[in-house]
Amino acid sequence: MKKKNIQASIVIIGNEILSGRTQDTNTSTLSKWLNSIGVKVIEVRVIPDEENKIVDTINFFRKNCDYVFTSGGIGPTHDDITAASISKAFNLAYEIHKEAFQILKSYYKPGEFNSGRQKMVWMPKNAELILNPTSGAPGFSVKNVFCLPGVPSILKSMLGGLKNRIVGGNPILSDTISLRTVESEIASSLAKIQDENKDVEIGSYPFFHAGKLGVSIVLRSENESRIKDCNSEILDFVKEKKIEIVDR
Amino acid sequence: MKKKNIQASIVIIGNEILSGRTQDTNTSTLSKWLNSIGVKVIEVRVIPDEENKIVDTINFFRKNCDYVFTSGGIGPTHDDITAASISKAFNLAYEIHKEAFQILKSYYKPGEFNSGRQKMVWMPKNAELILNPTSGAPGFSVKNVFCLPGVPSILKSMLGGLKNRIVGGNPILSDTISLRTVESEIASSLAKIQDENKDVEIGSYPFFHAGKLGVSIVLRSENESRIKDCNSEILDFVKEKKIEIVDR
Repeated sequence: MKKKNIQASIVIIGNEILSGRTQDTNTSTLSKWLNSIGVKVIEVRVIPDEENKIVDTINFFRKNCDYVFTSGGIGPTHDDITAASISKAFNLAYEIHKEAFQILKSYYKPGEFNSGRQKMVWMPKNAELILNPTSGAPGFSVKNVFCLPGVPSILKSMLGGLKNRIVGGNPILSDTISLRTVESEIASSLAKIQDENKDVEIGSYPFFHAGKLGVSIVLRSENESRIKDCNSEILDFVKEKKIEIVDR
Repeated sequence: MKKKNIQASIVIIGNEILSGRTQDTNTSTLSKWLNSIGVKVIEVRVIPDEENKIVDTINFFRKNCDYVFTSGGIGPTHDDITAASISKAFNLAYEIHKEAFQILKSYYKPGEFNSGRQKMVWMPKNAELILNPTSGAPGFSVKNVFCLPGVPSILKSMLGGLKNRIVGGNPILSDTISLRTVESEIASSLAKIQDENKDVEIGSYPFFHAGKLGVSIVLRSENESRIKDCNSEILDFVKEKKIEIVDR
């Protein structure tokens, strides 16, 4: 029997996200991937490149979630302080990781494994590596905390190698019905259905597409038949109210 | 004399962001706007549509930041619980806001101000309205907490009306130099400059553009001349190392 209700949090580390300079997309990438393997993201925090803030945030989440994922701050420059901060959070030595050293030594041409690059092999003592098929430098995990880079394409390429290390629950299934209506027209019918089906998460999201207003209703549950039940109750009131279905 | 170092936090409320279904863009919109009026965003949290979580998060931030901005959960459907939760956080009655009622009553055609829409005028007692030039339904503020909608275009349109209610410090200026190099080549030079100029925030961000690698160095400070100082120190090592400048 699979364990149910596995929860994760995501910590996005980087001043560039807080300043608005960079649009974060790693949250969405990680959340979708985690959903697909039965892990629910319960909170995301975006924090600056500050050691105390990283230590406090990690120590809070690692005790309250099954898994914690971080993104950012594991490169070669002075503002990359994630590995040092995670070491501090776990009270572990921050030291050269021998396996990571060997990986990068053979990744780069002779003479190119310079001091900047060597910074990337400093990790918490006994960290487990997360291999990087894109650009060599590995991420790492300590207990339930998994540290990934900030560059979206590199982060994405590293998820495949993590799959066997994350034990999820039942995948969270979802179904979307998009209607040509406005939220206020369906609010009371939807509230009634949510009230009678508390085990299904029902979300309502207005959209504007090609100049037209609409509402997407999203049903989420681990149980496919419960989603179908709600789906048919929704289609009942949609038919009754003569609302056009845009997509389902 | 302007007050310095004004800090804000952003709370994105919504299961759709946590599930990865919707890509948040409001953080970037709010951060850029806040920067431009001299307010620094120190943390962002994305939390689910759960009353306790909203109450706890708001109560934490409103005591630790000059301003708190929320996005999402102020529409007409059952999953819109921000106004009720903010009422609870401040221990205020959740009630019909007379001015908001009048605004929406005249916004909609006779007969269209239905019960779903009337939900949007329930707010914390004595909340101040934030006018909505796009779709009628106002946001609101209580003390230092400002509640905005989740739909990005509507949120954006409401910021203009807020400007006089946020007292910022000196605007945070930034300058970017983009180089055709990799981070490890410049890491030690950059670390030295950061070390000698602790009042300027120096960030280093790798990029891939048109198939080519590069690094953007971002300098941030309230003081333009300090940014210029660092800028010229960077250009010195760039020249010395014969690195191509892509953009500055």
